[in-house]
Amino acid sequence: MNKVYVVGLGPGGAQGMTAAARTALEQADVICGYTVYLDLVAPLFPGKEMRSTPMTKEVDRCRMALELAAGGRTSALVCSGDAGVYGMASPLLELAGEYPDVEVEVIPGVTAALAGAAVLGAPLGHDFCIVSLSDLLTPWKVIEKRLRAAVAGDFILCLYNPASRHRKDHLRRACEILLDAGLSPDTACGWVRNIGREGQTSQLLTLARLRDAQVDMFTTVFVGSTRTKIQDGRLLTPRGYRA
Amino acid sequence: MNKVYVVGLGPGGAQGMTAAARTALEQADVICGYTVYLDLVAPLFPGKEMRSTPMTKEVDRCRMALELAAGGRTSALVCSGDAGVYGMASPLLELAGEYPDVEVEVIPGVTAALAGAAVLGAPLGHDFCIVSLSDLLTPWKVIEKRLRAAVAGDFILCLYNPASRHRKDHLRRACEILLDAGLSPDTACGWVRNIGREGQTSQLLTLARLRDAQVDMFTTVFVGSTRTKIQDGRLLTPRGYRA
Repeated sequence: MNKVYVVGLGPGGAQGMTAAARTALEQADVICGYTVYLDLVAPLFPGKEMRSTPMTKEVDRCRMALELAAGGRTSALVCSGDAGVYGMASPLLELAGEYPDVEVEVIPGVTAALAGAAVLGAPLGHDFCIVSLSDLLTPWKVIEKRLRAAVAGDFILCLYNPASRHRKDHLRRACEILLDAGLSPDTACGWVRNIGREGQTSQLLTLARLRDAQVDMFTTVFVGSTRTKIQDGRLLTPRGYRA
Repeated sequence: MNKVYVVGLGPGGAQGMTAAARTALEQADVICGYTVYLDLVAPLFPGKEMRSTPMTKEVDRCRMALELAAGGRTSALVCSGDAGVYGMASPLLELAGEYPDVEVEVIPGVTAALAGAAVLGAPLGHDFCIVSLSDLLTPWKVIEKRLRAAVAGDFILCLYNPASRHRKDHLRRACEILLDAGLSPDTACGWVRNIGREGQTSQLLTLARLRDAQVDMFTTVFVGSTRTKIQDGRLLTPRGYRA
């Protein structure tokens, strides 16, 4: 059987992986991925063949995994977090039609929104949105529209890719849009860096202070809804059972 | 140490659980939860003490887990999917301040949005919202506001709790709001029932047809953004790498 697994590894090392992810990686002849993610799984599968491409070569990585499977070897393409949320499942499945003999199975994983929320408390206890602040593939105007819509809907908001080396001010710009859209500067917020990895750090703070927070590409940011609160050192959005 | 774990079990049986979830359940002296979820984990931990409360008694279940820990036993409170997304982490942490000697650790899991998306393809490849259609704890007016905001932001939309015995028409009402808000009747949509469990079924369809779909409380529904498409039998939202 010609098969590709697209596998979400979860937030960190082996403890964050599902049993299904581990099984898929065991069954794969070759594991493909960005070097950083291969380094996470290599110690679990000593001797397994690993193949990487540079960070920005997402489509090449998908094609590599599909070509391996078309050639008769079972391959696994790994991503951190979930396979589908800004992950490799979408670009790989876009190409999969060119490989009619290859079966694709997507193995979901714990995305940073869920893992980061667990570190901070339970901010995602009610309806929420996830928005990436990376404008590499999305015009900033679309990002701004989504931030304003999140405020209009009183959603809890989880922000991915709040900064990079070349986009140091995206979180500040996003916070200014949220404030301009009517969100209170006292809105309960938080961030987590290096979720589930060495050097995990986090902070709870108001939206006014979040605007000036120093974050990087390994940080996930949470902006509360009007019901989110900081209580006993945790970020919480009540579901409403006690109301 | 007086400890409560709040554990997200993921979508189905043992394969959907993370290693961290399994470790937490091993360390617990008592596992608490709604009967249906206890039945999922009981075969994995033969002989382990299990305690349940009826479905609607969420606050009682939280208090049971906290009381056990306060009395010196390590407890685990389990939920399906993630611990935080409409799960037990939020109500338990709201009560945790009353038990200052009890440490709480939230163990995240794969929520239905991620697991259902993996079944259908990669619908969550770009910014998305999750909205519950249950109006037990949320006024329908708030739900409607969020649906309209999701359309305004051109988000992919994942709907939880699209129906129950007493709310048979909520998905139809939601679809009519989405159409009224300007979403095309041709929008690519899908649903998955019994994700990761026996009897898993799914369907891809347009928004016009989703309005008349028969769904139940074990169904998770996906409504695409303007970029989502049905391709090679899969629901896909491109991330944009090829654009």
